[in-house]
Amino acid sequence: MNRDKPWETPEQDWRRAIDTVRAGRPLRPDSWPGDAQCAFALSFDCDHETFELGTGRAAIGRLAWGEFGRRTGVPRILSTLARHDVRASFFIPAVSALVAPDALTPVTAAGHEIGVHGWIHENTSKLPRAVERELMLRARDTLRDLTGAEPVGHRAANWDLSAHTVDLVAELGFAYDSSLMADDSCYELLSHGTPTGVVEIPVDWIRDDAVYLLFNREPPTRPWTPPEAVFDIFRREFDAAFDEGSVCQLVFHPFVIGYRSRIWILERLIEHAKSRGSVWFPTHAELARWVWDTSAIA
Amino acid sequence: MNRDKPWETPEQDWRRAIDTVRAGRPLRPDSWPGDAQCAFALSFDCDHETFELGTGRAAIGRLAWGEFGRRTGVPRILSTLARHDVRASFFIPAVSALVAPDALTPVTAAGHEIGVHGWIHENTSKLPRAVERELMLRARDTLRDLTGAEPVGHRAANWDLSAHTVDLVAELGFAYDSSLMADDSCYELLSHGTPTGVVEIPVDWIRDDAVYLLFNREPPTRPWTPPEAVFDIFRREFDAAFDEGSVCQLVFHPFVIGYRSRIWILERLIEHAKSRGSVWFPTHAELARWVWDTSAIA
Amino acid sequence: MNRDKPWETPEQDWRRAIDTVRAGRPLRPDSWPGDAQCAFALSFDCDHETFELGTGRAAIGRLAWGEFGRRTGVPRILSTLARHDVRASFFIPAVSALVAPDALTPVTAAGHEIGVHGWIHENTSKLPRAVERELMLRARDTLRDLTGAEPVGHRAANWDLSAHTVDLVAELGFAYDSSLMADDSCYELLSHGTPTGVVEIPVDWIRDDAVYLLFNREPPTRPWTPPEAVFDIFRREFDAAFDEGSVCQLVFHPFVIGYRSRIWILERLIEHAKSRGSVWFPTHAELARWVWDTSAIA
Amino acid sequence: MNRDKPWETPEQDWRRAIDTVRAGRPLRPDSWPGDAQCAFALSFDCDHETFELGTGRAAIGRLAWGEFGRRTGVPRILSTLARHDVRASFFIPAVSALVAPDALTPVTAAGHEIGVHGWIHENTSKLPRAVERELMLRARDTLRDLTGAEPVGHRAANWDLSAHTVDLVAELGFAYDSSLMADDSCYELLSHGTPTGVVEIPVDWIRDDAVYLLFNREPPTRPWTPPEAVFDIFRREFDAAFDEGSVCQLVFHPFVIGYRSRIWILERLIEHAKSRGSVWFPTHAELARWVWDTSAIA
Repeated sequence: MNRDKPWETPEQDWRRAIDTVRAGRPLRPDSWPGDAQCAFALSFDCDHETFELGTGRAAIGRLAWGEFGRRTGVPRILSTLARHDVRASFFIPAVSALVAPDALTPVTAAGHEIGVHGWIHENTSKLPRAVERELMLRARDTLRDLTGAEPVGHRAANWDLSAHTVDLVAELGFAYDSSLMADDSCYELLSHGTPTGVVEIPVDWIRDDAVYLLFNREPPTRPWTPPEAVFDIFRREFDAAFDEGSVCQLVFHPFVIGYRSRIWILERLIEHAKSRGSVWFPTHAELARWVWDTSAIA
Repeated sequence: MNRDKPWETPEQDWRRAIDTVRAGRPLRPDSWPGDAQCAFALSFDCDHETFELGTGRAAIGRLAWGEFGRRTGVPRILSTLARHDVRASFFIPAVSALVAPDALTPVTAAGHEIGVHGWIHENTSKLPRAVERELMLRARDTLRDLTGAEPVGHRAANWDLSAHTVDLVAELGFAYDSSLMADDSCYELLSHGTPTGVVEIPVDWIRDDAVYLLFNREPPTRPWTPPEAVFDIFRREFDAAFDEGSVCQLVFHPFVIGYRSRIWILERLIEHAKSRGSVWFPTHAELARWVWDTSAIA
Repeated sequence: MNRDKPWETPEQDWRRAIDTVRAGRPLRPDSWPGDAQCAFALSFDCDHETFELGTGRAAIGRLAWGEFGRRTGVPRILSTLARHDVRASFFIPAVSALVAPDALTPVTAAGHEIGVHGWIHENTSKLPRAVERELMLRARDTLRDLTGAEPVGHRAANWDLSAHTVDLVAELGFAYDSSLMADDSCYELLSHGTPTGVVEIPVDWIRDDAVYLLFNREPPTRPWTPPEAVFDIFRREFDAAFDEGSVCQLVFHPFVIGYRSRIWILERLIEHAKSRGSVWFPTHAELARWVWDTSAIA
Repeated sequence: MNRDKPWETPEQDWRRAIDTVRAGRPLRPDSWPGDAQCAFALSFDCDHETFELGTGRAAIGRLAWGEFGRRTGVPRILSTLARHDVRASFFIPAVSALVAPDALTPVTAAGHEIGVHGWIHENTSKLPRAVERELMLRARDTLRDLTGAEPVGHRAANWDLSAHTVDLVAELGFAYDSSLMADDSCYELLSHGTPTGVVEIPVDWIRDDAVYLLFNREPPTRPWTPPEAVFDIFRREFDAAFDEGSVCQLVFHPFVIGYRSRIWILERLIEHAKSRGSVWFPTHAELARWVWDTSAIA
């Protein structure tokens, strides 16, 4: 792209930019396991201290606030999920896992999935291809060594993908990515127009707790949305997915949702979902497998 | 203007600045077609990928989110409008249309209007006059070639007009512009004090979904307004226009309103409007023609 | 102040900074005219186009939005005030008045006060003393020439006072200033520890409609507060002032409050105030005179 | 940390950054004094004029707004606390205290605690160790000289701690710090892995009134959260702490909460707490002593 005069960008250039990564065929199954009416895929990004470290900073206060995520947030989340017998996916930067490997045990012991979320929550879009590949591999290996299970899912930190990310995810054999937002149902990712065999479980900023509730210095965001309104937005996302018989996917952060005045949002969402009818709560890995297997090319 | 010491700007300079574009005679008809009590003019700005490309950037995530607008947002909007038999106007940057010309068919087939919205959602205020003219022509020609109909309406991207925009809109024969905000009823545009014959269908930031609901990186805006409050604001805008017997104009974006937790706002607004009494839902082109024809100079 | 190492600022320096302008004796009358229970002082800052011009910019869209204030906002406000037989104060930058002198007539004809609000809504804190003095005089003379009445009140644009502003306001014989916020009741201004004889009618950001409802590019603010919440805040400010038997002062802008979805806030506030009991709606000039005269030094 | 390429930071470096300050053993007593069900620890940061001065600036308007805190905010707070017979902690920068020493008397006379909050609300994270130590000592001595009581608590301005702050707090013999956020219950602070004997009474941005209600120029924050929602968030924080039998800690600022439209939040919170059952309202000093004494190492 011509950054200064974008209107002078030649057609082949803006077409190439757009075609780098694209949504391919929809992966919308006709039915869900156990005859559930819809799928409700919950995920928790355990950035903890790496939310700060990944930017190259190490402010004492921000690290403490990251520590809150592991010390207080995750246990509250696990206990909420256990109370309702619900499985979910935890995306964990490798450094965040290495800080306290023991903290992974209650996550995996409860049957939750652990997925790749960068080495140190780095901005992937700034990496040369070789560095990105090496960090992605190292992050996956680290999580496998710590948990004994090979991660099959990938989520880019802050959803900042480079032009190479999707190709690398495909090349390294991940079953799915969960960092893009071209749909609110699953789809197959295209790279430069070619199907990759990788399932996209789309996220969106509006289904992310941090967007509404994160205090941040730079950029200066504040938790200006009332928690009741956050619940209402997520509830509406679920209800419409339920009515469509589709999937509702949400992103939480232990250092955002794990507070006393917010954890009820997660609990009430689960209760509400169950009150609507039969709902499948898959891990992202289970979801990716189901939508892929049931949407085989005819 | 004296940028550093604005208080030293000579009177002739600040008068010239103010007089560049000005609201002229009001175009407020005494009645609406079919004896409707008021007019409700809905518009949808289909920036899609050009919201990102028009700034000279091409982040993978932002392009996916633009793709959401075309893949998911527009179909939801069209189905809502069809369910209520309502016509509206779609403003589409030419590049956005060229990315997927087939996506225009369901829009035009349903009787909606397509209007000019820049070449690549460029910032018009930064363009030399000749470049602005050429892009405006090229954008109009592109849309005409793709749809078979000559666009008669113009809306500047981000409502950033240059000092030449209104003159060019007049010179190129557009029936109306919809980028300014000197009133909430229609008016004739003045250029340097002279009537242009161009109808202004005023927009306003407060009647734009993105102002309340857009997640953006730079500037860092967040969807901090609860959807219920957005509905309430738009409902109040409509109700007061209804009570005045005037026009209510709204701006939506498929990548903003097209989500499951928000599309209901559009639907409930239409239902609410119809519940108040007889309401005319014109395209912007129909509205411009009506207010012009019924407000002939005595 | 030592800007880089504020902790090294010598005591005499931070004391001098603090003592430049200070709140003096409270001006809290025991009673209000007509045995009213409290005073409700409404003000409207008619920046219009100068909100943009005063920063040295002249974007077409921002000027149109300023024009909205005069063309649409002020008439709606005047009609609301007339309907309830309420008087208020309008602070108008001189350039804003010069753009359309006829627009002042309905304001003064209805008995409202017009006060000084800078020459072109310039940032007073950036002016040398002599320039500030000359602009303050010129602004007052302009308003007097246009309306036939000498303004007695002063409000600094954006409440950005220089170290000289209060001295100049006193020297030029204004009865009151309304730009500071050291209390929510009236007080006498001190300059370097000395009483000035100038009444301060305090404003506050939280009693300003723009804080909640202004769309701005730079800094990027949005109208994120629901109008119902704005009404609730202002209602609470009034109710507590009523209960104290004190004064409630509010600041509105025609280009902020003058929209269909917001003008009801003003109307309902007046209705609510009247429903509580006997309320005095003074102009700021009347208020300043009353609190001064009834608080004579014993 | 490698600021430009954080992903290249060696393991020993990110481990050292994380280990600088860490949460140690939990200090969660089995019971509260007087068999209360939980503790409700209220604090008020009296930055007043130093909120501005501490950044090296001295804008007239901001100083007036700081003056509001002392002149209007603190008296309203004291009267609310007195009405409900509740004790709290006031953290006061030394310069803020020196501006008006008489203003401390009603605070201490009512039995409230006064704690250290920097010299001039400086950013501690920018100070060399020796400067930080000297300012911390000088601030404590100043408060002791003015009130006759030695402060035992420390809170860093804006919660910006340097790598030395916790060590200095321990070395200078403070009983507790209240600037960190690794938990919502009390804990012992670790410095480089070693217990310090200092109690942490954790704060959090989400339990701070300014986060929701502060108007600021830079960064440009606005009071966008409706007061009712602020009450709801704090009420939820308290209710969950009550249900856990733990502690709820809140941070207020007189120049934020002290307005007529907001002071009710404090009052209604206290009323609500008392309506739930037996609640202990300790000063932070009393709280630190209790959690330390009742959590002796076995």
